[in-house]
Amino acid sequence: MAGRNHLYIPGPTNIPNEVLNAMHIAMEDHRSPIFPQLLTPLLQDLKKIFRTETGQAFIFPATGTAGWEIALTNTLNPGDKVLIYRFGQFSHLWAELAKRLGFDVEIHQETWGKGMPLDKLEARLKEDTGHEIKAVLATHNETATGVTSDIAGVRKAMDAAKHPALMFVDGVSSIASIDFRMDEWGVDGAISGSQKGFMLPAGGAFLAFSQKALKATETSTYPRCFLDLQDQMNTNKDGYTPYTPNLPLLYGLRKALDLLLEEGLENVYARHHRLAEGTRKAIAVWGLKLCAYPGFESDTVSAIMVPESKDARHVISTAFNKYNISLGAGLSELAGKAFRIGHVGDMNDVSMLGAIAGVEMALLDNGFDIKAGSGVAAAIEYYRGTAK
Amino acid sequence: MAGRNHLYIPGPTNIPNEVLNAMHIAMEDHRSPIFPQLLTPLLQDLKKIFRTETGQAFIFPATGTAGWEIALTNTLNPGDKVLIYRFGQFSHLWAELAKRLGFDVEIHQETWGKGMPLDKLEARLKEDTGHEIKAVLATHNETATGVTSDIAGVRKAMDAAKHPALMFVDGVSSIASIDFRMDEWGVDGAISGSQKGFMLPAGGAFLAFSQKALKATETSTYPRCFLDLQDQMNTNKDGYTPYTPNLPLLYGLRKALDLLLEEGLENVYARHHRLAEGTRKAIAVWGLKLCAYPGFESDTVSAIMVPESKDARHVISTAFNKYNISLGAGLSELAGKAFRIGHVGDMNDVSMLGAIAGVEMALLDNGFDIKAGSGVAAAIEYYRGTAK
Amino acid sequence: MAGRNHLYIPGPTNIPNEVLNAMHIAMEDHRSPIFPQLLTPLLQDLKKIFRTETGQAFIFPATGTAGWEIALTNTLNPGDKVLIYRFGQFSHLWAELAKRLGFDVEIHQETWGKGMPLDKLEARLKEDTGHEIKAVLATHNETATGVTSDIAGVRKAMDAAKHPALMFVDGVSSIASIDFRMDEWGVDGAISGSQKGFMLPAGGAFLAFSQKALKATETSTYPRCFLDLQDQMNTNKDGYTPYTPNLPLLYGLRKALDLLLEEGLENVYARHHRLAEGTRKAIAVWGLKLCAYPGFESDTVSAIMVPESKDARHVISTAFNKYNISLGAGLSELAGKAFRIGHVGDMNDVSMLGAIAGVEMALLDNGFDIKAGSGVAAAIEYYRGTAK
Amino acid sequence: MAGRNHLYIPGPTNIPNEVLNAMHIAMEDHRSPIFPQLLTPLLQDLKKIFRTETGQAFIFPATGTAGWEIALTNTLNPGDKVLIYRFGQFSHLWAELAKRLGFDVEIHQETWGKGMPLDKLEARLKEDTGHEIKAVLATHNETATGVTSDIAGVRKAMDAAKHPALMFVDGVSSIASIDFRMDEWGVDGAISGSQKGFMLPAGGAFLAFSQKALKATETSTYPRCFLDLQDQMNTNKDGYTPYTPNLPLLYGLRKALDLLLEEGLENVYARHHRLAEGTRKAIAVWGLKLCAYPGFESDTVSAIMVPESKDARHVISTAFNKYNISLGAGLSELAGKAFRIGHVGDMNDVSMLGAIAGVEMALLDNGFDIKAGSGVAAAIEYYRGTAK
Repeated sequence: MAGRNHLYIPGPTNIPNEVLNAMHIAMEDHRSPIFPQLLTPLLQDLKKIFRTETGQAFIFPATGTAGWEIALTNTLNPGDKVLIYRFGQFSHLWAELAKRLGFDVEIHQETWGKGMPLDKLEARLKEDTGHEIKAVLATHNETATGVTSDIAGVRKAMDAAKHPALMFVDGVSSIASIDFRMDEWGVDGAISGSQKGFMLPAGGAFLAFSQKALKATETSTYPRCFLDLQDQMNTNKDGYTPYTPNLPLLYGLRKALDLLLEEGLENVYARHHRLAEGTRKAIAVWGLKLCAYPGFESDTVSAIMVPESKDARHVISTAFNKYNISLGAGLSELAGKAFRIGHVGDMNDVSMLGAIAGVEMALLDNGFDIKAGSGVAAAIEYYRGTAK
Repeated sequence: MAGRNHLYIPGPTNIPNEVLNAMHIAMEDHRSPIFPQLLTPLLQDLKKIFRTETGQAFIFPATGTAGWEIALTNTLNPGDKVLIYRFGQFSHLWAELAKRLGFDVEIHQETWGKGMPLDKLEARLKEDTGHEIKAVLATHNETATGVTSDIAGVRKAMDAAKHPALMFVDGVSSIASIDFRMDEWGVDGAISGSQKGFMLPAGGAFLAFSQKALKATETSTYPRCFLDLQDQMNTNKDGYTPYTPNLPLLYGLRKALDLLLEEGLENVYARHHRLAEGTRKAIAVWGLKLCAYPGFESDTVSAIMVPESKDARHVISTAFNKYNISLGAGLSELAGKAFRIGHVGDMNDVSMLGAIAGVEMALLDNGFDIKAGSGVAAAIEYYRGTAK
Repeated sequence: MAGRNHLYIPGPTNIPNEVLNAMHIAMEDHRSPIFPQLLTPLLQDLKKIFRTETGQAFIFPATGTAGWEIALTNTLNPGDKVLIYRFGQFSHLWAELAKRLGFDVEIHQETWGKGMPLDKLEARLKEDTGHEIKAVLATHNETATGVTSDIAGVRKAMDAAKHPALMFVDGVSSIASIDFRMDEWGVDGAISGSQKGFMLPAGGAFLAFSQKALKATETSTYPRCFLDLQDQMNTNKDGYTPYTPNLPLLYGLRKALDLLLEEGLENVYARHHRLAEGTRKAIAVWGLKLCAYPGFESDTVSAIMVPESKDARHVISTAFNKYNISLGAGLSELAGKAFRIGHVGDMNDVSMLGAIAGVEMALLDNGFDIKAGSGVAAAIEYYRGTAK
Repeated sequence: MAGRNHLYIPGPTNIPNEVLNAMHIAMEDHRSPIFPQLLTPLLQDLKKIFRTETGQAFIFPATGTAGWEIALTNTLNPGDKVLIYRFGQFSHLWAELAKRLGFDVEIHQETWGKGMPLDKLEARLKEDTGHEIKAVLATHNETATGVTSDIAGVRKAMDAAKHPALMFVDGVSSIASIDFRMDEWGVDGAISGSQKGFMLPAGGAFLAFSQKALKATETSTYPRCFLDLQDQMNTNKDGYTPYTPNLPLLYGLRKALDLLLEEGLENVYARHHRLAEGTRKAIAVWGLKLCAYPGFESDTVSAIMVPESKDARHVISTAFNKYNISLGAGLSELAGKAFRIGHVGDMNDVSMLGAIAGVEMALLDNGFDIKAGSGVAAAIEYYRGTAK
């Protein structure tokens, strides 16, 4: 099929050509005396994205799933109790991972479409006077439902309960796109991945840990090796890695960080919000509902519910096969009930208008009662009014 | 500015990633025994694009302007009379080039927005009983006005006049995009360039000449060297070039030809027509007029007239500065009066809908009385109905 | 410094330009209906490299270290006894990993420079009448010492002892370069990585498991998630992955497999042997000794001992700083005592002659008593006599 | 064949990966308001390479052959007398080009292996009291014979004769590699190409003209269009081009200029000299002679004569087919009598040692009486002693 594929999934996201080129490199000796000139500044600048000065950043040649595992296995002991609220496929998977790894996982099922229930959290933590809960796992941005949780609120709830648990945050689809403040919010372990806001292929787990979490690694008895933080710390301090690094990923990250820091994180957040908001204007005009309840709308991905009479999979399939647009599917409970538009990463107004126009075609083809051009019109008005 | 530039100029066009990658190569010895394995099939396959079996194809490391020059200086003698109808900036430039090169150029000014005036041509040729006119120069697709001429008709007119002049066709913005048939239409010299339907950067002049034209090179006394066809023929026959070739261009052309021939030329033409037609639906709904008169609409570029009260340059400037869309400017007589949307090369429905939506924003921002989403809606309906 | 870095470390190895280009791609939806068209043949063809028809191949977005971990944690239970012979830094690290992961690791220290002690192995297994040893860990190619072990011999020893332990082989620096036959040798778990014979960046752990090993995954109670084989099997069977795949790595692997299979594995092995042999000719002429004892010489890397009066680090440092050549360092016990020349991956005669000439310069600069050109001369004679 | 091709022809030269990446770009509008931000500094920095402050630099999407033509057709009138000394294939071709373009070419045959005969030149110019000679054409570096001429000496001879002819210099294989000083030497037209010292593919003719030459363009009546300097001047002054530019070439040039200027031209020259000198040491030890007479040796290419009993083509063919090394052939009169080693562009010590070792193999295979390793040894000693 001629013409490019139009990629609007919430990850992997579109890679800017500059980043792709930065990854197109000859291999080099990762034990050379000049290798630290690459790695050390990368780790420093990564901290800026996590917005931590007191914490430490890490790069693993792995994925976000590994990131979830790293946080738990490096800081906790086998059987430790962890608390998680499940409100989407990714919080579900994190909970499952914790269970499979042998932790005592206390799962609270929440409405898919809402985020962290701050009152419940505070109440539960207050109950836990014995401090059996060793960690709270919070999904900042539920990629499956397009829901953003209030992480500052999580900290407030933990502080209100005077609870010493570690706070781990899944920021795979938020960090580098949506406002995230590790130090200010008292996050102990922040987990992200290369393939969303960082505009890279999957294959990099990017994390940051607080001093409190790093202290906990010293007493953790959980067996681990490939995903060990101490090994990273021991080698990173001199600018090296415990095993062969993925060089293209590191060079790509260098360029991606340069782009993000040059734009400025506040501008990056604002851009994502603006592009998301235009998309939401279109969705509203179509008469469709987000999976996200008001106040929980994500700026990186919109999960759009279809009426019961429709199957969202057909929308996705039409978009892909007829128009070469890739949309995100509804996952698990949402399979067939929702489709998703990613508005994360290297995007701008016209990118999103292409997505919206393409979705309109797929909706119309599937008998949705919408007016051609209506969503685009709504987005156009919003973008025009808010563009610089 | 984050996000990609959306390029809708009529050339250089968007290069498919596969073609860009094919150009990303180590240099090699262009005099090696294996070099002909690259060049010889390229020249053969290029003939398929020109649709000639009896002619011969050529690749010069130069541009379309050089192509115009090559056709004239290799086949004619200094001072020879050539006939040209001027109905846009590129036919104008070709005429100027011919004058500057010392030919006796008979220029007929025609309406910008129309193409080759077949009746007038036939009449003029019939008048020329002494056959002083040595060549007819026909612009197949006037990139400036978005006008496609009837080249089969040119042949018919020449035949009706039983005129032996050479027929040279500027197909820079038509060949590999719009129906073109060198043998069937009796074209003696077809000139194209790399940066339009061939989906490559500028830097390649691609040409094909009939046996009649090649015969004429033997008697032409026009001084030439860099752009000499005989030098090419002498070296191409063994698979080599008269001077160092542009290797990335050749490798890129290999991939581009593979893509075009795999899609099939009829499908390539149909795709361009369909994308153009959707764009025209939008233009019509906006209440704007094409520069092209009915029947002359180009499938590679639409030149859109703005009302007298408006300046098209502002539309282009808004599109570029505010929305990162590149549109074509009105050239020469059309400066300020028209803007152009290229729908040539590696495009698909969503690409065009992005262009249309973007143009809507720029029009609205400049006070055009159009309805947001209206053009997109018209195009959507057309694309939906005609997509496979 | 002008000119390219000349990379002769035993990994990451030089990436052919075709492979780098294949990795230069737009992202795509890894849940699309066409994604299996990429993954399924990859997994099939990967089996050909491992030379297994009955086993199953796996791709993890991780490194060889993860590969070691995958083999153990998916098939064994915590505390299971594993047997390992340590004769270099990488067998050492694997043993350490096994210990850290809580296995009962029986380590036998062997001479660095020799490989698997087949007699001792057989004797030890015969002693283990209770079959407490659940797995034998064998390092096929010790990258640190440049030693290749006889894996067919390991199988023979295990069979002679009628021992049912699983046989796991670290083939990170052998598979795709040195003769390796999973089925024929009865290997239960073969571990490789992307950055050596596969000519890719680090970031891919490539593995293959026998049906016996896969069966063992069903009873293994070891906690795991990111590195779980079952998750891969469950998703791979339909052509998908348990989490976002590293797309450039997959596309690069596609091209690398095409190159390897087109050349033919026997030719790949022969090429590595020939390049290694030429290098060894040079080393011999210099009067230097390999770390490897006769019969154990590796065809992917030569570890070269320096006299006691010399520090191998100075050779490496001179090579890098003065001549832009990257050599491998002596690791751990060999630090300062050896330097290494990698002859693995996308190499040919002239590549190796460049290495040898460069090493000669660095040796001379460091006062080694060698004759300039002598090593090159020896290699030249060998390469000339054996080239096709 | 596995492993890279080792390219040692005198152009196209090896392109640094950074330059290749810089060329891997999305197309853009060459009429955009930001395009001059690319072109204007390029033209300024190009002047630094030509070492002219008073002249003007030009970029044509063409080759060095076009460059020769540009110099003549823009400044002279048809039939003007030009003086050229022919001492190699490229001075021959330039003379032929001038003849074919209708100039009155006075050709003096000189020994192939020597350069501009300064005394004869001065004498001839003094004879030309009527100043019929309008231009002196001097080949700075004869790529065919590996001869560098004394261009400062040409100026001295012209000044001694008080002759007002324009001085045009072919610096295709010298500029950006060998000392060249346009202003200081009073060069009126300097012609170079992209594919040698500029480390780019062919496809760019880079030129610089003095004010005197530019003045001459105003009176030149030679018909021209594609290669017209005035058209460039008229558009370049605003940062644009007369026709669509080759964007990858421009972006590649940007990076190449950055690399060259960062290294410093004096260092670039010194590097070329050093690499050439090492190569010559090897040639001498082999007992072979350069085509170049003493004092004329080129620092970008060595043309090496073989004994009468040998055919240099066999050396080249063995090198290519057996060892994947590309050497330059002997051209025209030198066909079969010489082969050439290019030491121009992105090279370093180990690159050259690979070439020398490879050539040794090819020589030995063809029965040359040389000692394996001898040339390498000679070069090694030289490089060791002169490396920083």
